[in-house]
This record gives sequence, C-alpha cells and structure tokens, in this order.
Amino acid sequence: MPRKICLVGIGKIAVDQHVPSIKASADWELAATVSRAGTVDGVQAYTDFDLMLDERSDIDTISLCLPPVPRYDYAARAIAAGRHVMLEKPPGATLSEVAALEAMAKAACVTIYTTWHSRMAEGVAPAKAWLEDKKVTSAHINWKEDVRRWHPGQDWVFDPGGMGVFDPGINALSIMTEILPIPVHLRSADLLFPANRDTPIAAHLTWTEGVTGDFDWRQEGPQSWDITVETNGGTLNLHDGGARLVIDGAEVIAGPGAEYPALYARMAELVAGGASEVDVRPMLHVADAMTLGKRVEVDAFDW
Amino acid sequence: MPRKICLVGIGKIAVDQHVPSIKASADWELAATVSRAGTVDGVQAYTDFDLMLDERSDIDTISLCLPPVPRYDYAARAIAAGRHVMLEKPPGATLSEVAALEAMAKAACVTIYTTWHSRMAEGVAPAKAWLEDKKVTSAHINWKEDVRRWHPGQDWVFDPGGMGVFDPGINALSIMTEILPIPVHLRSADLLFPANRDTPIAAHLTWTEGVTGDFDWRQEGPQSWDITVETNGGTLNLHDGGARLVIDGAEVIAGPGAEYPALYARMAELVAGGASEVDVRPMLHVADAMTLGKRVEVDAFDW
Repeated sequence: MPRKICLVGIGKIAVDQHVPSIKASADWELAATVSRAGTVDGVQAYTDFDLMLDERSDIDTISLCLPPVPRYDYAARAIAAGRHVMLEKPPGATLSEVAALEAMAKAACVTIYTTWHSRMAEGVAPAKAWLEDKKVTSAHINWKEDVRRWHPGQDWVFDPGGMGVFDPGINALSIMTEILPIPVHLRSADLLFPANRDTPIAAHLTWTEGVTGDFDWRQEGPQSWDITVETNGGTLNLHDGGARLVIDGAEVIAGPGAEYPALYARMAELVAGGASEVDVRPMLHVADAMTLGKRVEVDAFDW
Repeated sequence: MPRKICLVGIGKIAVDQHVPSIKASADWELAATVSRAGTVDGVQAYTDFDLMLDERSDIDTISLCLPPVPRYDYAARAIAAGRHVMLEKPPGATLSEVAALEAMAKAACVTIYTTWHSRMAEGVAPAKAWLEDKKVTSAHINWKEDVRRWHPGQDWVFDPGGMGVFDPGINALSIMTEILPIPVHLRSADLLFPANRDTPIAAHLTWTEGVTGDFDWRQEGPQSWDITVETNGGTLNLHDGGARLVIDGAEVIAGPGAEYPALYARMAELVAGGASEVDVRPMLHVADAMTLGKRVEVDAFDW
C-alpha cells in the first residue's frame, strides 16, 4: 500500500516535477498539499501547515519544495510533529540550519533526506564509476542558463539566502561532489552581483586539482549544463545536466533526465529502513564561494 | 625537555602574543621562525618554509600565525612533512580548507589544533559552567573596535577571504559557541561593505533563541568586547573579550587575558597525547552570515 505524503509549496518545480513523480510512484500517495496559492486537482489543499499536521495524522511524510529561506521553519515543525522530511535542494538557507534539522530528526527518530536531484540524472552514477580509479588532471563546469526562462519573476532567488546563480549552480556542485574521486576546495572566486540585487547573477570559481567552474544566469539562446573531466585515462563529458554521458567522444548513455522519480524511490527506501541521508557538501562549496569570493558589481538586473 | 617549535608569520600577533607565550612556556622551545620580513632575536630565521622543513628535522611542531588565505598551503606542506600543526584563528579561509587539513593530519597521524584564543580568556570556562543548566532567554554580542588601531595598514583583512570585521568578530563567535548551552543558527544578517572593499566593516546578526550581535570596526574612543546573556537564572556579562565575568552585577573573575599561554599548553597536551582538536563552529557562523547576509554599501574605507 502506498505511503501518504504531503507536498508543501506548489510552485513551478512542484507542478513540473514533484507532482508527476509522486503520482507515477507505487510507493507514494499524494494525500494533501500546503501552499499559499497553488493546488493539485483532486488533492486536499491546505494553506495552513499546522492545521494539516493536526488534521492529517495519517500522513507521515512531508516533502518541502518551497524556497530555501522559509524551508527551515516548515521542516522544524514537521519534525516536531513526528513526520519524515524530504527537502528540495538546497536543504536550507545556511549550513547551520541543516545541522540543526539533522540533530532534530535524529532526536525524533524520523527520516531526513537532503535531496540533490541532479545526482539522479542517468549519466551521473556511471560517470562516478568510471572516474573511481582515474587520476583527474583537470575539470570544468559550464553551467549557463537564462534566469528569465527558468525563474520568471521569482525575486526570492535574488533576495538574501536565495543563492542567485548558485540556485542552479548547486546542481553542478552536487554532481561534482558525487563523481570526483577526490575532494577539492576553493582557491578563488569572482562573484558578479547586479547593482540592485543581493545575490550573484554569475560566478567564476577555481578549486584545487585544476577544477574550475563558470556559472551564468544571463545566457540567452542555447543553454549549457555541462561538466568535462580530463583524466589520465581519457576525457569524460556530462551534458544536459548529467543525463548524457560521453567518454572519449563516444556516447555511453543518454537518459531522459528522470531525476525526481528516483528521489521519491530513495525517500521510500529511507523511510522503510528507518534511515536518513544528509549531505551538505554542495552547500559547503557555495558557502566557501560566498566567504572567499571577490564581489564584482555588474549591470542591474530587472525581469 | 621542551619540544622544539617553529613559528611562521612574524607579524603583530606573533610578536605581541605568540613569541612571549612560547618563551615563557616550559613545554616549548622557539627553535626557528619563517617570515618574509620579521625575525626574533636569537632564533634562527628562515624566509623559505620548505628549506626550514628540510633542514630542521628536529622541529616537529609548526605554529602558523600568518593571515588565513596563505595559511592552508603552509599547513598542508607541514603536515605532508610529518609535522604537528597549530593554527591561529580562523583556521583557514574556507570551511573546506579546514576539512582538507583535518583529513590530511588524520592520514599522517599528526596533531592538528584549530586554536580559538578568546576561549582561553579567564571568564569563559566559568561562564560556560554557569550557563550549563540555565535556559537562555536572549543574548547579545557587542564587539566594536577601531580597525586602524588593531590592524593598521593590513589590507589583507579587507581582501577576499580576509573576513573583514569577522576577523575580530569570530573571537566573539568562538566564545558564543563555547558557552551557550544550545546551538543557535542565523536568521538574518546585514553586512556593511565599504564601497571600495571586499569584506564587511560592520555587521548586525540575528540568530535563533533571541541571540543578536553587533560587530563594528569603526569604533573610535572606548572599545567594546562584551557578551550579555539573559537567562531564567540571572544575567551573565563577559567583558574585555571574555577576561572579566560578571553575574547579576557581581564580579566573579577579572583575569589578565592570558589567552595564548593556555593555547600553547593545550597544544603540548595534544601532541603528547597523539590527539587533535578541530572545531569549525565559529567559522560556520561566518560562512552562514556571508551566505545569508544582506549586503549594504557604506562609505569607502581608507587608512
């Protein structure tokens, strides 16, 4: 019998990815939603999270896909009410928030899962396996997209804690931290802040081990979500956000990018096994960039 | 017999604190220094760190008090050469650097000690003991000093990775994370960046549990290094950077602020015991502030 789940934050990512993934899953039944405005046809819709927690004691799992800044309070209330919690990326606005939630979930004996959807792209696991015994000589992340297309009018991405270009860029960092056989750490960064905004719209990062990254939210025309890794055993390319893997020019896999169904399958496993999965490494790289990065002012950004 | 130690980075803090503390210690003998310019009378002075590591195999402990950005490379080379490492605060320019050093030290079976000198101020341990069974209702950090007086002409504090006002502010954070009986996490922050500088000159932070902090490097006249904690059992005040403890208006202790001798005593214990001590919590709060903080531009700063 499927386990009942409540989805909180019915915005673009919920409608595009979470709802169809839950509906297609034999593990889960979408039993309620909580959102200020969004609803899902045929599913009980709440606007008051605490009311849902009170009334729907039959729902033991909460999936949170609202923006990172408000996410902590919802997660803390869910855990306090004894519910399992699944967090969209990034799992919080700060590293300390995630540490606090992890400690709370442990004390309450509930599952907490910090999801990183890009790690579920079809090329990532085989890329990790191929790299495992290689020596990396250099690597480059090229993550360039049009914020107007993917976050139309969503001012929260430019508000403090919204992470700016690292909102998509953290997807690349989640792949990087998953596939590279050795950890790297930041050496320098340029962060490009629009004159009228609180988060960067572009960033150039240089890590140890010859690893670099270009992140840009001003990309019109073709969009790029690519990672190249040069090794002593050949060249690995991930394209399309990790869905397509090419090694030495030969295509190894080209998946449909079905990331979210895999996240919900993993959450079902964790809950069934009484386990948790918390990994903050992608956030750590963002925090490092925000701490060490040089701030460069660029043109004001308006939608 | 005292253990031989090499001090790297003979600047203001080395001359003011490290050298006299080592000289007064029965645990240590200052056997060499490495610095571009500074020297210590009667002590072999190197400018080339690798040469010192090669020539002085009798020195098994290195104390690094150069600025945070170059510190990592020296620490990594010291550990690779099998030496124990003691790090001035903050222990690195980023959290990932410290994690990397910790892993390297563990693999090399050498001691690594991330020092937080303010925790050794005489009021801190009794403050922690007094707070242990109290409920904190609010707390406030008031950390205001004149950067021209304490860091005259040291541009690195305003360069990327120099942390700005958090260079002294992290001392308050090291006390906060030591004495508060529960962890707190940041809710919001204003970071005041001079128009011509890369790090904040002042900051206002708000954490959970009613904890707030004002950090300012523009303080002329009297300097303030105070922490007030309101509890269900009375009011605790730390003054003079933690050296003076006052509870409900009564002075409990007023020490001379002899922090560095205690650090070197602790390092001797760690090395003798084959142990390490790494705590990045104060840095985590700075990284959180830099990630979540709202950037406010203020007047340009020049010496």
